Parts: sequence; C-alpha cells; structure tokens
Amino acid sequence: MHRYRSHTCGALRPSDVGATVRLSGWCHRVRDHGGVLFIDLRDHYGITQCVIDPDSAAFKAAEAVRSEWVIRIDGRVRQRPAGTENAELPTGAVEVYITDLEVLGAAAELPMPVFGDQDYPEETRLKYRFLDLRREKLHANIMRRGAIIDSLRRRMREGGFFEFQTPILTASSPEGARDFLVPSRLHPGKFYALPQAPQQFKQLTMIAGFDRYFQIAPCFRDEDARADRSPGEFYQLDIEMSFVTQEDVFQAVEPVLRSVFEEFAEGKRVSPSFVRIPYAEAMLKYGVDKPDLRNPLVIADVTEDFARDEVEFKAFKSVIKAGGVVRAIPAPGAAGQPRSFFDKLNDWARSEGAAGLGYIIFDYEQANAVVRDSSEGPISAEDMRAELAQRGAPIVGKGPIAKFIPLEIQKAIAAKAGLKAGDAVFFSAGPEAKAAGLAGKARIRVGDELNLSDKDQFAFCWITDFPMYEWNEDEKRVDFSHNPFSMPNFDHDAFMALDPEDHATILGIKAFQYDIVCNGIELSSGAIRNHRPEVMEKAFGLAGYPKEVLEAKFGGMLNALKLGAPPHGGIAPGVDRIVMLLCNEPNIREVVLFPMNQRAEDLMMGAPSEVTTKQLRELHIRLNLPQKQG
Amino acid sequence: MHRYRSHTCGALRPSDVGATVRLSGWCHRVRDHGGVLFIDLRDHYGITQCVIDPDSAAFKAAEAVRSEWVIRIDGRVRQRPAGTENAELPTGAVEVYITDLEVLGAAAELPMPVFGDQDYPEETRLKYRFLDLRREKLHANIMRRGAIIDSLRRRMREGGFFEFQTPILTASSPEGARDFLVPSRLHPGKFYALPQAPQQFKQLTMIAGFDRYFQIAPCFRDEDARADRSPGEFYQLDIEMSFVTQEDVFQAVEPVLRSVFEEFAEGKRVSPSFVRIPYAEAMLKYGVDKPDLRNPLVIADVTEDFARDEVEFKAFKSVIKAGGVVRAIPAPGAAGQPRSFFDKLNDWARSEGAAGLGYIIFDYEQANAVVRDSSEGPISAEDMRAELAQRGAPIVGKGPIAKFIPLEIQKAIAAKAGLKAGDAVFFSAGPEAKAAGLAGKARIRVGDELNLSDKDQFAFCWITDFPMYEWNEDEKRVDFSHNPFSMPNFDHDAFMALDPEDHATILGIKAFQYDIVCNGIELSSGAIRNHRPEVMEKAFGLAGYPKEVLEAKFGGMLNALKLGAPPHGGIAPGVDRIVMLLCNEPNIREVVLFPMNQRAEDLMMGAPSEVTTKQLRELHIRLNLPQKQG
Repeated sequence: MHRYRSHTCGALRPSDVGATVRLSGWCHRVRDHGGVLFIDLRDHYGITQCVIDPDSAAFKAAEAVRSEWVIRIDGRVRQRPAGTENAELPTGAVEVYITDLEVLGAAAELPMPVFGDQDYPEETRLKYRFLDLRREKLHANIMRRGAIIDSLRRRMREGGFFEFQTPILTASSPEGARDFLVPSRLHPGKFYALPQAPQQFKQLTMIAGFDRYFQIAPCFRDEDARADRSPGEFYQLDIEMSFVTQEDVFQAVEPVLRSVFEEFAEGKRVSPSFVRIPYAEAMLKYGVDKPDLRNPLVIADVTEDFARDEVEFKAFKSVIKAGGVVRAIPAPGAAGQPRSFFDKLNDWARSEGAAGLGYIIFDYEQANAVVRDSSEGPISAEDMRAELAQRGAPIVGKGPIAKFIPLEIQKAIAAKAGLKAGDAVFFSAGPEAKAAGLAGKARIRVGDELNLSDKDQFAFCWITDFPMYEWNEDEKRVDFSHNPFSMPNFDHDAFMALDPEDHATILGIKAFQYDIVCNGIELSSGAIRNHRPEVMEKAFGLAGYPKEVLEAKFGGMLNALKLGAPPHGGIAPGVDRIVMLLCNEPNIREVVLFPMNQRAEDLMMGAPSEVTTKQLRELHIRLNLPQKQG
Repeated sequence: MHRYRSHTCGALRPSDVGATVRLSGWCHRVRDHGGVLFIDLRDHYGITQCVIDPDSAAFKAAEAVRSEWVIRIDGRVRQRPAGTENAELPTGAVEVYITDLEVLGAAAELPMPVFGDQDYPEETRLKYRFLDLRREKLHANIMRRGAIIDSLRRRMREGGFFEFQTPILTASSPEGARDFLVPSRLHPGKFYALPQAPQQFKQLTMIAGFDRYFQIAPCFRDEDARADRSPGEFYQLDIEMSFVTQEDVFQAVEPVLRSVFEEFAEGKRVSPSFVRIPYAEAMLKYGVDKPDLRNPLVIADVTEDFARDEVEFKAFKSVIKAGGVVRAIPAPGAAGQPRSFFDKLNDWARSEGAAGLGYIIFDYEQANAVVRDSSEGPISAEDMRAELAQRGAPIVGKGPIAKFIPLEIQKAIAAKAGLKAGDAVFFSAGPEAKAAGLAGKARIRVGDELNLSDKDQFAFCWITDFPMYEWNEDEKRVDFSHNPFSMPNFDHDAFMALDPEDHATILGIKAFQYDIVCNGIELSSGAIRNHRPEVMEKAFGLAGYPKEVLEAKFGGMLNALKLGAPPHGGIAPGVDRIVMLLCNEPNIREVVLFPMNQRAEDLMMGAPSEVTTKQLRELHIRLNLPQKQG
C-alpha cells in the first residue's frame, strides 16, 4: 500500500464498502460522541468521515488528535448507519473505521480556525494565509481562478494565438503609472523597472514578425491599493495581433471572453453578442464610459425641451443659456414611491455637489379617484392604472417643478425618456460633462433603489470611438485624451495636412481605441496602434509635443516602427477582474493565492523588509529616510 | 475582402490557381529579373513568391519597395512556370501576379539584413532584436519554446497538477544567490525582493491544503551571466506535491519530461526510463553528479590493485598511503592512437593541476608481428586483433608505467575497467574528491577525442541519495552539503537521538534529495521537504545552527510547519535549459524572446537606465556611486 494513501479524501463510495483503505489529510473536525470519536478527514479532494472507538488499537493515538493535525489512517470502509448519511458530501454514504493512525504533522494552537464560517480580521487572515486558504470558499476561489486561466489559455490557443514570455526586468517607462524600480548591481546608478504592462514588448513582437501574441502577463504598478487591484502586481490577458482592423480584434476577443464567462457563469446569462456603444453615446445614455447594462435605464437629453419658450423653469433655462445641458433619468414605476424616495435622491445629488435633482412624476390625474365595488377588495396600483388607461384618462406631471412645464412639453419629455403613467423622471442639469456624470450616478442609484437590475447576468459591451484629443482647460491647449499611441480614425493625408490651430477638427478626431466593459467594470482598454512613424510624429505635434520630445521619450519604439512595422492592435483584459466577476468577489484578495494587504505588505512572508548594508552597497544606493517627527 | 489579407503568406496551393487574393507581409527578398520584379513576401506563416511586370498598374509602386518593407498586395494566383517551382516552400508551386500594391510600413536602411545567413555581432543582434527575430532560425526557436511550454503545461494538467501564480514582489530570502531588490515607496527603508524561486510559496501552497502544484515560474537571481542562464530572469517548471515519497515525484515528473522530449526530439532517442544513480556511485563512475550518459565510458576504482605489494609505481602508492584513490578511465580502441593522443591528455591533466594522467595500453604482444599473404592486401587493426585473439595470443600492457605493474594486476585492472586488447586506460590518482573530479573530466575528454558519444539521444538519469551533510574542512565542522530543508533519509527517533559529535554517523546520512540530469546538464534539483519542525531544528542543530538562528532566518516557514503540514516534495526543471536542449542551442539568448546581454543590459529598450531624482526620493533612497578613478 502507498506510504500515505490508497484513496484521496474525496474518493470513497458505497462500492468501496468492505475495502481496507489508507487516507491522509487534515482533521477538519473532531467530535467525541460518547466515547466514539468522529474525525472528518479533509484533503484537497474532499472530506471523509472516519470513526474510531475504544475497540481499535489506534484509539489512544486518535484521542490525542486535534483540529488541523495532519494524520494518516488505515481502516475499513463501511456503510454509514441508516439516517446518518450526509447527502451533501460525495463520500457521505460511507465512513472509515480506523484501525491504525499516524500523526504526520501536528498543529499547535490555531490563531484562526479552519472549520466554520466565522469571520476573522483581514490582518489575521493574511498573516496566516496558509490557514485561511484551507477554508472551503477561498480554496474553491483559487482553484476556480486556475481553471479560468486554463480556459482563457486554451481558447486563445484555439483562436490561433501563441503565448510568449516578455521580460520582467526592463526599462523604466517614461509615462503612465509609477514604476517599481530595481537597482542594478553591475551598472551603478542605473535601475531596471518592472513592466506596468508588456505594451512595448508586445508591439515589438508584432514588429518582429510574429502574428498573434498572447500572454497571461504579470504587470506591476506602484499605485495605492484599490479593492479591485492588488497593490503591486496583477495579471492581464495580454493580446496583440498583426494585419488587423478593430473589427478583427473584436472578433478574436469576444468569443474567448463570452465562452469563458459561459463556462464559469453557473447559470447566469452572458451577452450573446457584445453591444458596441460609441463613447459619445455611452456618455449620453449612461453618463459614463463603462455602463452597467444590467441596469435597464437609459438617460435622455431633454435640453431642447427645457429650452423652449413655454418652459418657465429658470434654474434649467439659465444652465442651458450658459451652454449646459439637461439630462433625463427615467424612474419607471416610481410614482408609487413615497415622498422620501424623491427627497433622498435630491439630498444625495446635493452631496455630489449638484444643486439638486429635479423630478416629475407622471400619473393619471384621477389616479386617486377610482372607485370600485368593495366586494372586489383593494385595487392594486397597476390594475388601477390599467383601468385608467382603458378609460383614456389624461396623464399629468406632478411634483415641485411640473407646474413650470406645459403639459405638451411634459409629454415630449416622457416620450424621450420612455415613460408612462406611474413612472417618474429625474433631471440633471449643468455643463455637459458634469450633468452627464451626475445623470450616470443617478441612473445607478435609481436602478438600485427600484431594484431594476437583473443581477443574474454578465452584460458586456464594447465602448468605441474614443476621442483622440481633448481640450486641456488649465493649459488652454489640445492634449491627448487617452492613449497617444492609438491610430487616429482619420484619412491619412488629411491628418498629415491638419493645421494645429484647427482645434474644432482636431477635437472631433476619434481614435481606433476601445474598451471592453462587463457589468459596469472596465476589463480593458485596447487599440489599433499607430504603426506609422510619420503619423505618430504628426499626432504628437498636434498635441503640442515637438519631435524631440517624442524621440527622447519613445525613441526605441519609434525606431522600430521605422524598420518595417505591420498594422497591429490588441487589448489586455484584466485576469484578476475576470476572476473576481466569476467568483462574485468584490475584493481581489479573495481570488489571489498570496496577496499583499492594502499597505502593500505581505504579512505572512514579512515583505517588504529591511536589508543589509552590504546589499545596499552592492547596489550602489543608500537609504534616504524621512526625518522623524520631533 | 479583408482590409489586409485573404490568405496568409503560407497558405496558397495549386488548388488556388486562378483565385484573386490579398496578402500582407514583409518583403523578404526583392529581385529584378530583366524588368520583372520578384518579391518574396513573408509573414509569420510562410513565404509566397509575388511577381510584377510593367504591364501591372502597380509596377511603379512595386519598384520603390525594398527589403523588409511591409506591403499589402492584391493579385491573381498562378502556377509557377515548369522548372521554377520551389519544392522547399509549401507555397512553392504557385506565385501571385501583383495587380495592386500598398505600402503599409516602409523600412529605412537596415542595420542588419533579415534575408541570408550572415552572422552579426551579438550587440547588433540584441539592439535590433525585432529584426533578428524575423530570421528563420530564431523565429522557429521562439515558436518552439512556446510549443514546449504548452506541452509541459498540458502534460502537467493531465497528470492532475494545478497551476498557481505565486507573488513576484516578495521578501528577501536569507540565503541562496543574490536577490534583486525593489525599494518600497510606502515603507521607507524597506525592500521587496524578486523570488529566486517560489520555493517557500510552493511549500506554503501545500501546507494550505492544495495537493499538486505547478507553475511556469519566472525566477530572478542577480548573478553574473552564464551561457545557459540569463543574467536576471529565467523560467522553471516549478512542481510540488503533497503526501508523496521520492518515488511518487519520480513517477509524476519522469513521464512528463520523457514525453515532452519525445514530442520535440525530432528523431533523437529519449531514455525510455530514467536510470537512477546514487550520488556516491555517480561520483565514482562518472566523476561528477551530472553525468552525460551519452558517453558510454564508466570509471572504475583501482585503488586496491595499485595498493598491492607487487606494484612498484611509487607515485600512486604514496597517494594511496595518504588516503587517496586511483581511478581508471577506459579508452576503448585507443591502442591505435598515436603517441600524441596520450601526450595531449597528459598535458591537459597538468593544466588541470594534476601531476599527469598515467596510462596503460593493452594489446597483443605480437600485435606488429602478424604476417599475411600480401595478396590479401593490408590488414586492418581490428582484423589483426581478431586473428590474434583466435590464436590465443597473450595480451600485455604497454606504456610508461606498465612495467611497474605485474601482468596479473594489469589484467585485473583491465577486467575492472572492461578493457580488451586494443584499448587503453588512463589513471587519475589523488585525494578522493580531486581524483574523482579529474577522472570525470578525463572521461569526457577521452569520450570526445575518441568520438564515443551517440549524440542523437537525450540520455536522462536521476541522481539520488545526496549526502545531507559534509565536512567543512576550513571550519572543522559538519555543515549542510546541499539543501538544509530536505528530509533526512534516517529513522525519525534515531535521528532525534543523534549525538552532534558522532560525525561518522552524521556524515553518512543521506537526504531525500535528487537531481534530474539530461545529457550532462542538470535540469533541476528536488527533494522531499523536511516538514517536521522538530526534525528541522535537530537537522540545523547537527550543522551547528542554534534554534535561534533557524527561527530568525526561517521563522515564517517554521511557524507554518507547526500548524499542520503534510509530507511534501517537489522539483523544478529549468524551462530555458529544456528548450536549449530541444533547440540544440548552447546559448540561452537563442531561445528567449527579448534577452539581456551578458552585462545584464537590454540594449533594445535601454535597460537598466538612469531615473529621476524625484523617483529616488519617493523610494527613500539616494545613489551611492563608486568613486571615479582620478
């Protein structure tokens, strides 16, 4: 028999009854039922109930055993007594009567238990991560993470992509987030940097003549922690393709993500095709460039309506006069909500820095005047409205600002926002960006308050047509709005001929740049890259960067582009975020094997830590510590 | 039609003749044959010959095209004229007549060509790695690397292993090679380290209750470069298993490596089972713990023979008297070698610091006295010896030292070293370690000189039973010989009871530690880990380290072992070395996508590089540069 086990702890079934077996694992739970000991033995594969009584020669050894000790047992498989089966365990029909027991690894007193669902402070959980990982949920999350990554890899390969490994010790990048630096021992005063992403390397891989690159790539950013990003390192499914248009990238990536999500969705619906929403449309309809499409609400622009002479609502009229806009956030079915619902939203808007959140409630004038035969019982609001609709009852707007808006215009607004009797509408007014942003947040709040989102789905979309440039109000000049290395979606010759002072045209240029969004979470940005050095120089010139700046900062890439570069583009969905979505975990530390805490510390290994003077000297650096406060 | 291509450059076949196609790629070679231009268009998938003449509207555009320009062409597929087919190209039966041509990416003058086999200095090749990678051999190596890693992954998963990602920003390890350090911004004066290997993390993964871990793991060591190791980072197939014996590790790993090697061996033989050689036996038979078993020579110990009274060879006798040994390196068939063969080996041994390399040539006394009918032509040495053997001719030892050794003892030596007439034997004498080492090197040289190795094979072995301890002659004490964390192969209770002064017993203890070796290259060390804290404390104690040292240096791991650790072990074959073997490349830079040079510089990206004072200040360090020489 094998030194440690003939079966795993998840293997035994009724067909094994009568067999002599050997199991090894952790003592998940030890119970004493009147002199009979029950040991639930746990390993990676499952749990098996083991039993021993004083008739066994191993009883004395078994009495010493405590939770989380690692033991090896020999025994006979037997049917559990009728009524004591555990249908939730695959091994739940049987138990093992212990005839021999060996302690393989005893455990001292545990700083936190493994059995049970008790919550523990994150500091304890991270310091004893190896204990926390023995718990069912976290163990399952980590295995799920592995399965998701395997699936991503397999599907990428099936899509004709090849995996590459790009360097981790590389050059400090001249922009983006903060780099982690690594002092060089051989080159005094010089530093490597850990890659924020293999962006330049994957582009160079394309320029080197490989065609479809991918990598489950570790990336490093020295940024303060967020719930959805580890401080330090994270993984992305890094993708790049040659000789492609934006459409090709969509066609390559969408089936991979859709099928991986379908595989792990556990019954949740996954968008059968990912709707494409131009950036400007997303900002209008959802007030944000990463809309959560589980929320069915769509914002409408009602600036025109409020601008009409017949409207007397001065607050909005002055906003419009100053060049601002009014956006309408529908609140279907909200007519029945109490006054406090509207007040709460108004208060929230003020806390967001807005003047308030005006609203209109649409309902039948006689909504409260329908009389019924009492024998039919109380009438529901829905039935009542159906009856009023049948009777052709007139609809009116109610609420504090309704009286300033003629009925006809109220109707126009209701039509634009898709509203009927029983619904309400909120208004966000102000300069466009601000009004759109508030409308977007209000859309989320209204959707949450009214419980409108179907959470049992993964709702994907592509956001496309990002503007190439934006107006930098502080410096009164044109600047890049997102990624300066994306290809402008503009005729080549016309682009090259652009006058840098033609701000109107320049600010209207879209880039071949796109985001993929799932349930309101941005999984990645991507782009068709600017692979033409002359277009890149012009693009930088339009943003006010002279050729010398471009060459000083990005000379390496620019030179590579000058030696035969193919058109190429890609994307890099965040692996950790995908796993978080599929594990339904809002905290990244629940889906990473050995995460750091929010303060970028590994409490288990004691990182970061002090190093020796010799190490510092070898690296040609010395410490430069902040002055201690007196 | 697609914006860039209807087919790849490796796709077209005679069945496509007549089709209108679109291709994109690099101009591999442009030839002008009397006004007709031939453009070999290359992409990741292959090369297609494209043709254009002045009748085509695109001729003028085609005339401008140079090597390595990226172009898109439209054209008609036609059969190549009879006699001009290229059987070496899958597309070699057809060509495309160009009707339209678009330059997608022009190329300036190339610092090195892509077409052709001309050698270029490594500095140029690394600086323009993206050009070098376009060359056939390097491109193929990198793709092969990816395929090998895919295969390793697939086979590990099929073997029931799960892939995990362990942290890259971690704690500085208290021993081993030099760490790369990463200053912490949030924790002034503290540093992360990049992992030399995920050793502690994979053990913690086992302690956390996962069962079969693997990872294609990036590892980092700040060591000076070697041909087979990148300065900086490298990859290993990191493996760990719970509830296993050494035999289980062998059974899990051997089939993975064997089948991956069989898959990529291209006809070379792969050891059907990996022979297991205890360390002591390897040191005797091969003079090294990583024997190249393609070399059939086996070293014999002939100390006893030279110790006999009848032997008068004083040099060896005094060695033996001083406790040294004499090892015999067979040189089959060397009798026919000229005197210079033996002199050269003797000179080489002196250059290695030895006194020389004594030898005996075994041959028939009458070897030069066989007379034949001249009509039969000159007789071969082999035939001659066969005839002498048939005649039962006596064999004698020849050479400078033969006369000091009685014939009977010569025969005993010949028998031990497996020698017959026509063979020779070299001797290495000295203190055991030194004599064994020299014998091992002589074995390699003799094998090379006599061309005895069958290079068409991958010859694997396991080296087992490494000693746990060795004698530290400088400090006159027992010390760990290899890995202090391996489990001693010794009865638990007897081990715990060992007297630290019982050096003889302690130095005889073997560890459950093993190496895997292929063609003389160590692919990895591995071990069954010491998972018992009390045994680890005792093991450190025997090597003279008090408990406090163990706790200060390895407290984290020790504490984890105290909270329920399973028996576990593993190994970590070097991925880069596996790829080098399977690509038959002696230099690691030929199998890594973007390698650094020997000086740990990335010449393409300019790493390492200087950073800003602001960056240093944020990281709480300042430079401490060496004084410039006056």
